[in-house]
Amino acid sequence: MALIVHKYGGTSMGSTERIGNVAKRVGKWARAGHQMVVVPSAMSGETNRLLALAKELAPARHSDAYGRELDMLASTGEQASSALLAIALQAEGLESVSYAGWQIPIKTTSAYTKARIESIDDTRVRTDLAAGKVVIVTGFQGVDAGGNVTTLGRGGSDTSAVAVAAALKAAECLIYTDVDGVYTTDPRVVAEARRLHTVSFEEMLEMASLGSKVLQIRSVEFAGKYKVPLRVLSSFTPWDIDLAEEARSGTLITFEEDEHMEQAIVSGIAFNRDEAKISVLGVPDTPGIAYQILGGIADANIDVDVIIQNVSKEGKTDFSFTVNRADYARAMDILKERVLPSLGALELTGDPKICKVSIVGIGMRSHVGVASKMFRCLSEEGINIQMISTSEIKTSVVIDEKYMELAVRALHKAFDLEQQAA
Amino acid sequence: MALIVHKYGGTSMGSTERIGNVAKRVGKWARAGHQMVVVPSAMSGETNRLLALAKELAPARHSDAYGRELDMLASTGEQASSALLAIALQAEGLESVSYAGWQIPIKTTSAYTKARIESIDDTRVRTDLAAGKVVIVTGFQGVDAGGNVTTLGRGGSDTSAVAVAAALKAAECLIYTDVDGVYTTDPRVVAEARRLHTVSFEEMLEMASLGSKVLQIRSVEFAGKYKVPLRVLSSFTPWDIDLAEEARSGTLITFEEDEHMEQAIVSGIAFNRDEAKISVLGVPDTPGIAYQILGGIADANIDVDVIIQNVSKEGKTDFSFTVNRADYARAMDILKERVLPSLGALELTGDPKICKVSIVGIGMRSHVGVASKMFRCLSEEGINIQMISTSEIKTSVVIDEKYMELAVRALHKAFDLEQQAA
Repeated sequence: MALIVHKYGGTSMGSTERIGNVAKRVGKWARAGHQMVVVPSAMSGETNRLLALAKELAPARHSDAYGRELDMLASTGEQASSALLAIALQAEGLESVSYAGWQIPIKTTSAYTKARIESIDDTRVRTDLAAGKVVIVTGFQGVDAGGNVTTLGRGGSDTSAVAVAAALKAAECLIYTDVDGVYTTDPRVVAEARRLHTVSFEEMLEMASLGSKVLQIRSVEFAGKYKVPLRVLSSFTPWDIDLAEEARSGTLITFEEDEHMEQAIVSGIAFNRDEAKISVLGVPDTPGIAYQILGGIADANIDVDVIIQNVSKEGKTDFSFTVNRADYARAMDILKERVLPSLGALELTGDPKICKVSIVGIGMRSHVGVASKMFRCLSEEGINIQMISTSEIKTSVVIDEKYMELAVRALHKAFDLEQQAA
Repeated sequence: MALIVHKYGGTSMGSTERIGNVAKRVGKWARAGHQMVVVPSAMSGETNRLLALAKELAPARHSDAYGRELDMLASTGEQASSALLAIALQAEGLESVSYAGWQIPIKTTSAYTKARIESIDDTRVRTDLAAGKVVIVTGFQGVDAGGNVTTLGRGGSDTSAVAVAAALKAAECLIYTDVDGVYTTDPRVVAEARRLHTVSFEEMLEMASLGSKVLQIRSVEFAGKYKVPLRVLSSFTPWDIDLAEEARSGTLITFEEDEHMEQAIVSGIAFNRDEAKISVLGVPDTPGIAYQILGGIADANIDVDVIIQNVSKEGKTDFSFTVNRADYARAMDILKERVLPSLGALELTGDPKICKVSIVGIGMRSHVGVASKMFRCLSEEGINIQMISTSEIKTSVVIDEKYMELAVRALHKAFDLEQQAA
């Protein structure tokens, strides 16, 4: 039998009834002979409730100033849900023990509210597993070198689970969530979207960063780095379904190149409508220009996504990039007031009503013409492409927001991603 | 200026508005130049909410089985309120940091849900105080030698505050609560009850154990052991009242014998109506008889309060004791089924409708006739005394429950405890 890590999200831990079902499901795996480690999120709503209290007390200042105390506060949610799950497992007749991040310890950087895991000591967990206990490790949190509590940022419980699985060299890390796997695209946009039985780590990374919000991107990076077999599956199947069936369900994220030999060229269509584009036109094409433009944006803590600079004509070039739509107005102001005057650029344009659509597939590495097939498909639908950006396994285009659904549906069909008729 | 410890109860921490007021009050003390350490309880209702969730998950088994996890769970309440108070203080412009029990560390025994403090490391707190920070230490919790979270049992935050004050050799430990001090008796029973400006540690100990629920008894023991000046005062005065006035308010619990030279002989009247009496009559007066009777009661985890055994007549004696009324039926069953058959006792009688009334005063040590004054007073009211028990600074009588208020009022008057006319 194997060492298995289960991770349950806030919805799965949302009430004592649901926690009881998680205990029954974990119990099924433990009784089948597996060594079980469980990483639960806080009960749904709890983290928001706690942070809302903090906001009432300190509405004015930026949350960074309170980082250490916000982490002390928010980390209590996972500690409570972990203890409750341990109690539920004991009530099911299974020996169980819960550990807060500092007790393992899960050592992290000191970047409060967005710390990164540095190391995990597996001694305590291994001793308990050997003694036949189910071990519960609080997600989302750790402890820094100074003994201060840290949190990993929203969705950090996924990362905790993968990191624990890596430290323990677990056979598989199962992420139980409220979706039943990774789809070729969002089923709300394309009814024919199909669940992928497997998806490569690299594809998952591109899909996660492109807005398929199934898994926190850092958890996927971690899984890739340590080659942790990762499965996304539903926590809403009945807890007593056949274990072998459950173990095959959802989507497995894989790391072995060979497995993908026969995979489709394109695995999925990702999209993101929360973006805005900004172009600085007629910029002198001299060294340091990208830093001059984006430095001020980065200083304002604004994330930049796609960046494009085309070849120059007559010593001038055009520089475009996309930012989160919520940061659009602020980014435009910074450029207008601080950057353009010193830059001698001719023009600043922007559009908050754009979206990004991407095709993702590890097969694109070895197949030519995939991007051009994408462009032809969009052209046939009369959709104008505003920006293009490519990587080894992804091609993204920026288009007018109003064409998003049309583009996603057309591409989904063009690349044969539809569900097979039963 | 001095090193001061403040402790705030759950009601004082009951909402963000109240936490904001606590921050303002602490800020007033800090700005006056004091080094401030604050020990807050969980927000009122939070501990009950958490333990109710645990009970839903494990209704059947005894809570001892879940002790470790119950402590992991319940300790989150104080961690959250401490972090919130740190945020509120920072919002007030004061540097502040909160520490969970394990971070100090506050080392305790491993007796989950009722651990006892063994040691407190003051290094971290002293460093922060020297740097001008307000230090917040979670009440109610600690960590055992194995690195497991423990709690001190209900009301344990008082004990935490006193222990922290002792470790830091604080000038005073102020317990802010929803009463404004220690009274000569319960003002709900005797309208003329008077607030004591000072009360000796020994008197407070007797009053606390006799049911004056102002302070957790263990905290008073701790204060006595380490000679921590302890003040009970109201958290419902406006936060901005004059600091000197606030520092004089409430009741100071003192340890210096000299201070009591001119004190009244009797300081207060305590009472407890939650008791029941049990008598075993005609017991053979042989060694080991008390253990035979009370051993079975103790094994069933039933607390015994007053114990009386009178001189024997013809080799037989009568043995009486009181227990909490909730344990009365169980105690009677144990005696009937397990103890009496092997004891050869003649008769078992009991009465759940009794109460205990006590006069408490350090002056009783040096004054004769105090007890007889009590008995005369009760006799004049026609109240029959069923049991009498005395200690150096206390005389307790067990009487019929229905006479309780009458007895308390009469004694309060007889010992001149009424409020002086203004």
